[in-house]
Order: sequence, then structure tokens, then C-alpha cells
Amino acid sequence: MYEVIPFGGITSPKGFLAGSTYCGIKTGGRDLSLVLSQVRCVAAAVYTTNRVLAAPILLTRDHLHDGWAQALIVNSGNANACTGPSGYSDAELMARAAAEKVGISVEDVVVASTGVIGVELPLDKIRAGVEAIVLSPIGGHDAALGIMTTDLVPKEAAVRTRIGGTQIVVGGMAKGSGMIHPNLATMLAFITTDAALDVGFAHQALRRAVDESFNMITVDGDTSTNDMVLLMANGVAGNAAIREGSPEAEVFQEALDRVATDLAKAVVRDGEGASKFIEVAVEGAATRDDARRAARAVAGSNLFKAAVYGSDPNWGRILAAVGYSGAEVNVDKVDISISGISLMQGGLIQQFDRARVSALLGEKDVRVEVNLHLGDYRAVAWGCDLTEEYVRINANYTT
Amino acid sequence: MYEVIPFGGITSPKGFLAGSTYCGIKTGGRDLSLVLSQVRCVAAAVYTTNRVLAAPILLTRDHLHDGWAQALIVNSGNANACTGPSGYSDAELMARAAAEKVGISVEDVVVASTGVIGVELPLDKIRAGVEAIVLSPIGGHDAALGIMTTDLVPKEAAVRTRIGGTQIVVGGMAKGSGMIHPNLATMLAFITTDAALDVGFAHQALRRAVDESFNMITVDGDTSTNDMVLLMANGVAGNAAIREGSPEAEVFQEALDRVATDLAKAVVRDGEGASKFIEVAVEGAATRDDARRAARAVAGSNLFKAAVYGSDPNWGRILAAVGYSGAEVNVDKVDISISGISLMQGGLIQQFDRARVSALLGEKDVRVEVNLHLGDYRAVAWGCDLTEEYVRINANYTT
Repeated sequence: MYEVIPFGGITSPKGFLAGSTYCGIKTGGRDLSLVLSQVRCVAAAVYTTNRVLAAPILLTRDHLHDGWAQALIVNSGNANACTGPSGYSDAELMARAAAEKVGISVEDVVVASTGVIGVELPLDKIRAGVEAIVLSPIGGHDAALGIMTTDLVPKEAAVRTRIGGTQIVVGGMAKGSGMIHPNLATMLAFITTDAALDVGFAHQALRRAVDESFNMITVDGDTSTNDMVLLMANGVAGNAAIREGSPEAEVFQEALDRVATDLAKAVVRDGEGASKFIEVAVEGAATRDDARRAARAVAGSNLFKAAVYGSDPNWGRILAAVGYSGAEVNVDKVDISISGISLMQGGLIQQFDRARVSALLGEKDVRVEVNLHLGDYRAVAWGCDLTEEYVRINANYTT
Repeated sequence: MYEVIPFGGITSPKGFLAGSTYCGIKTGGRDLSLVLSQVRCVAAAVYTTNRVLAAPILLTRDHLHDGWAQALIVNSGNANACTGPSGYSDAELMARAAAEKVGISVEDVVVASTGVIGVELPLDKIRAGVEAIVLSPIGGHDAALGIMTTDLVPKEAAVRTRIGGTQIVVGGMAKGSGMIHPNLATMLAFITTDAALDVGFAHQALRRAVDESFNMITVDGDTSTNDMVLLMANGVAGNAAIREGSPEAEVFQEALDRVATDLAKAVVRDGEGASKFIEVAVEGAATRDDARRAARAVAGSNLFKAAVYGSDPNWGRILAAVGYSGAEVNVDKVDISISGISLMQGGLIQQFDRARVSALLGEKDVRVEVNLHLGDYRAVAWGCDLTEEYVRINANYTT
């Protein structure tokens, strides 16, 4: 029960301003973005599971400890990772520059960085850049451009829905896909809403949305030291704060899930060297975890991804990936189809029109369906094909 | 305390005969191998962890239930997987053909198959092939040729050592690397010895050897439905049966580990499209499991593998892989070196000669060393680079 806002983004919700500039951290294009809410926001974040955490992640975790934030400063071109003890204080100085510009407390600033690692942040450039940024209520698109590294397109999404009688909006922007160019790395997503949220609910809702979106995509299986998904809710829409378990919570969750999923899919579509988008839907799993493992294993299998690149209807690689995923599977019950054509039913290979399936695998979008017939759980994962271009990009990149 | 036997293989231990033939299952080369011990053997096997098990694996598990075997029949070109209920009885008929040829009980025959899946075994060809095979005490090399699918070279190894005053030999052969060409798939390894082993010790020794060898290699992270490692010990050397915990057990374990490791490394060197061999040694881990996870994560990282292909000294990808491996890591303590040159010490990037490291990455053999400085555990994993050729092979293969 939501409506997609065409060309919507992080400033689609009321009360958010954004802008970006080019300050010379990277060698071309905008490299510094600022997002500001007119009032303090309930804020929650989900961080990389990588045990090596970059300085901006550590600082953001500290600043979000109280559950509130008002601004976000992000640079591309330098990840401020593996920079020794000065990394944290540099991240703090970056937050301070933003706080001073807009007149808020430094603890209310969230910091994110993406780019080369092992190089100190050029703080002078960042300070000058912060000064130069012009904030605007239609600056979301500029902000989305400023966080790009090797991304080919900016990634934005927004939806509107109603909470009680009040219209609320959820918007967002994202960059990069997992560990694509790990030294120009990082998956970052920032989501804003003008809905009022209870602090506890904000955390739960974000974690749930990430679980069904960013945690179900895979480009190459690697995760970076800087990954983060942030949610800021400023309550400017004027609804009563949404609490866990209420009917409003479900409406909001649906809207948030849609924005998160749209951004996650956009990240996959723009995966390094990717030529095709693969959706893997698993149903009939014995547990939720089984459904998720199986879907992700198929979407993440190098061999299946290479087969999709070659338009080869290789059901054997799908079955093998389900088999090693750890999910419970009884091969005599498994159904497999590719883009609507059944290849295997009850574990038996079907007579299928190979040329037709191969032609469907030639499309930009490929859908794999697997039914394990062992239970009621389902999950969807998204990935991209593995191409010679992927190898070329990642082999020829120079540290 | 062992000696490598040049050009040794599965018939290097006393009392083993082997041979192979071309019977038309695949379109070129030998495709059926038979190994026979002159007396019954203590036998143990480790199977694929894939939940989808091919029929020959199920049959072999049943036949090895009593811990004894005397012969091994292996075909390449057809995996007898996903063949419905007739798969098991076909595997049994294949075992029966071998048993009748050599005059032993069908329950003492181990069966393995590798090749296309979803196609019934051509039993008539196999029966004729079994008849045609000439067994010989120097037939090990022929047997190693008969189990190849997309392998470019046969893989064999053997060592000799002394148990008490008695000379004993361990030999083996292997094929394929994990889920390379999953429809012409499968990693198979067969190890023979003329040492006498206690049944319980045989199982433990094999599991331990597999843990340090085949479980530490990765080509593309996929595992097949037909993977198996088999150990057959015929006791012809005349030593007293080796028991767990004895000094002789350690001597035997060392020899077995060497053969298993040599075969595992040969599988990686022959990985699909591989141009370089990567050894990853992790030390200073807090636990054994941490050391193993970290080593495997680096060896298995698509991004690092692509960097090695491109001779890029990308320490960031090594650090990131260690970080997401699940191992405990404190980035301020991590040392990283590539082929002897230190890139990171105590979490700080070193000044290093980029051209020199790049040149070392141009060699056929690359060694990565990581010290986590958190404990005393170490592990070594082996992998290969990710090349455009890998993608081409796997994209252009037709099911």
C-alpha cells in the first residue's frame, strides 16, 4: 500500500536538504555529499560484518549510540581505512566541519567514507568542500552523485504511503556493490523518512529491511570494511511515532522494504562487469534460514553465474549450489525452472526446449525458481552474471 | 620421515593392480579404470558435504559399511547423478561387473562416477569395458588417465617410509578440481597403502589428512554431488596393524598427509583456467578454526584471485578477506606479506617496492603470509587465480 515516487531520492521526504561538491579527493566528479534534516532524527544503522572496521564506521557507531542524528557527511575517493590511530580523529574532524557549517552538535553527525584505503583523508580539501556545498530541498540527486566511486549510475528510490491520515515518504540513495574494487570499495545506503518512529522500532525496521534486501544480494561474495546502511527519521510529517507491533508499523515496513530492495537491486544491476541481473526465488524450504541460504548460494555460485553469462541452461549448477548451501534438500522432490520454463520436476530432468531457455537466458533479466517441497518458507536473492569483464576490471585495477 | 617416489602412484604400494580402457562413455581418451588389491583391504572414505548425493556415493557408502573393500571401479564421462531410482541399481550392476571379472564379492567393490549428470549410465559399454581392462602391477598411471575429465594432466603421488623395521608405501591418484565443469564434475582421490591399519585408525587418519589437504583447496567454492576421497590399506607390507595414538600412527599420518597434500595441490594447479598457484599461510590465529577460515577466505576471494591474475599487490583484498572470514582479527596487529615481501606490519602499510612485488606476482607460484598475532594456530590453504579463461570455459560449456 505505497506509491513509488518517480525520480525520488533522499530529499523526497519533507524536512531534508542535501547537496554535494567536487573537492578533489578523487580525480573526477563530485566526491563530497552532505545531508541535513531540519530537526534531529531518530537514527539507526546496520554495519558491515567484516571484523576489520574502518574509522568512519567506528565514529558513526559512537555518534549513533544515543539513537539520534541530524546530518550525514560522506566522501568518495578515500575510505579512511587502515590509516592507523589518526583515522578516527580525522573522521571526527570531518564530522566537526559539517557540524560547524550547519550549526549542530558534532555528535549528531554521521560520517561515511569510500575509496582507496591506507591513505590519510585530505582534511583541508574536505573542509573547503563542506564550505562549498549548497544545501537544497531538491539536492538528493546531487548527493547521490557525490557518493559514487566505480558506479556507472546513481542509485535512488522513494515511495509515499499513509500512516493513519498522514502522508509519509521514505527515500534513499546507495552506492557500489559489496566489495567491488575493494580499494575503491564499499556498499553504502542512506535512507530518510519524514515519518516519526519510535527509536526501538527504527532499529528493528531497518534490520528487517536490510535482511530482505542488502543481505540478499551478492556480487562477488566479498564484504568491505566500510559497508553501512543508515536510516534517519525526522518526524516532520506529523504522524504519531510508529511503534513495533502496530498496524502502522506494517505499513511503514512495507514502504521501507521497497526502498531498501530497490536500492539493493540497483546495486546488483550495476555490479562490476555485470551484463545480466539474476533473481533467485526459493520456496518450499523447511526453514526460513534454509530458504535464504539456498537462494543466496545459487545467486552467488561462480559456476552458475558464468553459465548465465554464457546463456547455458545449466540446471546442474543450480542443483549443486542448493545442495552445498547447507539447506535441507531431498533431491527427489526438487523442482527447478529458469525464466518460467521447467527444467526439473521431482528431481527428474524434464524435456525442455534448450534453444528457448538459452534465448531467455540471453535477456537482461533472468529468474530462477527452485521449489524444495519440504516446507512453507521462501526467500528471494539477487545477483549478476560473472563475466570476462569482471575479471578484467579486477585484475587490471592498480592498488 | 618419508621419501617421495618419483612417478609413483596408486600401484606403488605392494599388492595393488590397476588398468584402464576406452569404452566409449566419453568422446576421447580412457574412461574406465579398475584397481584391485590382491587381498581384502581396510577401507575408509570421506564424501562430499553436498546434500545432493549421486548414486555411486550412496552405493559406496553401503559397501564400505563393514570397513572393508578389495576393488575400485571408476568411470569418467557420466556421473550417474540425478538419474532417478535406476541410478543406484546401475551403480550396483557396474560393481557387479567388476566383481565378476576379478572373482570377489560385489560388496567389496567401491564405485565412483564422474561426468555429465542426468544421463543414464551406458551399462553395456561399461560391461564390455570391464572385460577389456588388463590389470597390471604397473597400471597405476593408466588408471590415473582413465579418471580424467577436463583435467589437463593426470595427478599421482607416492611416498615410502618405515613402520618399525618394515618399509611401507602410500600412493594415490586424483582428478578434477571441485566443481569444475559441474556436469563433467567432481573431485575424486583414491589412496592406497600396503601398510596394515586398524579400521578405526584408517578412518581417523584419512579424515585428518583430508582436513589438511582437500579441505584446504578451493578453485571456485563450489562442491559437487560426487566428490569422494578413498583410502584402501591391504597390509601386504607385513607390519603390525597401526593403531591410533602409537608412534607408528604419526609416521604413517605424515606419509598419508604428504600424498593427500600433493594430490590436492595438483588439483588446484590444474584448476580450470588457472594460470597461477596461490599458497596462503596464516599464523598467529586465536584458534585452529580461525586459522583455517582466514586462509581459505583469502585463497577463495574472487577479488584477490583476480588481483593475482593481474599481478596487483592488493593487500587490501587480503585484509578484507581475513576480516570477513569470521576469524578473530585485530587490524592493528596484522602482518601481511606476498612472496616474502612485507606489505603490512602491525596494521600499517609498509613502504614496499611495488614493481618488485608485481614481478613476483608474475611467477607461477605465489605465497601469501598473514600473521594475526593473536595466538599459536596456523593453517595453509591453496588456490588459483581467477582468469578470463575460467569465465570463458564455464560460460561456453554446453550442458
